[in-house]
Amino acid sequence: MHKILSILVRNHPGVLSHVAGLFTRRGYNIESISAGETADPKITRITIVTYGDAKVIEQVIKQIRKLIDVVKVQELTYEDAVTRELLLLTIFVSMNRRPEVITVANTFGATVADIADETMTLEFAGNNLKINNIVKALGNFKIKELARTGLVAIPLESKLEQNNGYHH
Amino acid sequence: MHKILSILVRNHPGVLSHVAGLFTRRGYNIESISAGETADPKITRITIVTYGDAKVIEQVIKQIRKLIDVVKVQELTYEDAVTRELLLLTIFVSMNRRPEVITVANTFGATVADIADETMTLEFAGNNLKINNIVKALGNFKIKELARTGLVAIPLESKLEQNNGYHH
Repeated sequence: MHKILSILVRNHPGVLSHVAGLFTRRGYNIESISAGETADPKITRITIVTYGDAKVIEQVIKQIRKLIDVVKVQELTYEDAVTRELLLLTIFVSMNRRPEVITVANTFGATVADIADETMTLEFAGNNLKINNIVKALGNFKIKELARTGLVAIPLESKLEQNNGYHH
Repeated sequence: MHKILSILVRNHPGVLSHVAGLFTRRGYNIESISAGETADPKITRITIVTYGDAKVIEQVIKQIRKLIDVVKVQELTYEDAVTRELLLLTIFVSMNRRPEVITVANTFGATVADIADETMTLEFAGNNLKINNIVKALGNFKIKELARTGLVAIPLESKLEQNNGYHH
C-alpha cells in the first residue's frame, strides 16, 4: 500500500537524514520526498511517499515519532488529501512547431517558463496522473530535462466535512 | 552564498539519506530538498538548496560525487535556472469572503483546489518571491495549513544561449 506521511520537524541539521535513514535501515525506498517551509519559519514539513507492508510502515512511523525534533506525524491517503507535484519539462522544439506545444500547454493548463532557440520549458502543477498525461501528450518531442518535485499533500477539508457529517 | 544542487541518483534505498547525511556531518542544514522522478524511471533527481561557505560546499559536492549511486551533480544558481516551488495553502474563509480570495487567486494565477464550509485551499506554483507575495496578499485570513514542496530547478536554456553567444 502507498502511504503519504506529512511530518512536521524543527529546522535542525540532521533531522531530514535521520528521518530518511529510518526507511533505509529497513530496506525501504522512499518513492518521493519533499521538504519545505511552513507558516512557522522554525518548522519544516517533510512529505514522504512510501510503499510497502502496512505493519512495517507502522513501525517506521513509531520510530519517526520518537525522534527529538519531530513535532507531528500525519498519515494521509490519496482520497482524503490534496496531493500535488510540480513538473519542469524542457523539450527540443523547432521554431515552426512552437504553436503545437503552446496548444498542448493551454489544453492542460501548463505555463511556458522559457523559450530558447531549440527548446521550450514548461511548468505544470498537478497530481501524478495529470503530470503523466502532459508528458505523454508531448511524447513526439525529445526530452532535454525533466524534473519533478516530490509530492506535497494537505488534508482535503471538504472530504473531512463529508466524513464527519458536518453541516451548517 | 546559496547553492542549488541538482543530483541525479539511481533509485536504491539509502541514497537519499546518504546524500542528506553528508550535509549533516558538517553541521550544514539543507534549506530545501525535493526528490522526484525523471524521464528515466530508474533515476531520481534530488534538488537541494543549501547555504554556506563556498569552500565547504565544494567539499560536500566532492563527497556526493563519490557516492556509488550518484550519476551526476549539477550546480545551478538562481540566475541561470528556472526555479519553482509549489504551495498548498488552506485558509479559514467565511462564505461571504470567498469572492475576495478568488480575486487574489486570479490576480496571482493561483488555482482553487478545494472549498469547504469554513476553508479554501489554494494551489500555486512560482518562485520563492511570488509564493511569499501570495501568502502576504492573503494575510487577513487565518492559515489552517501551509505546505511547500522543496525547490526544483532546471537550466534556463535561453540564458545559456545568451552566455554562449549562440545564435542561428
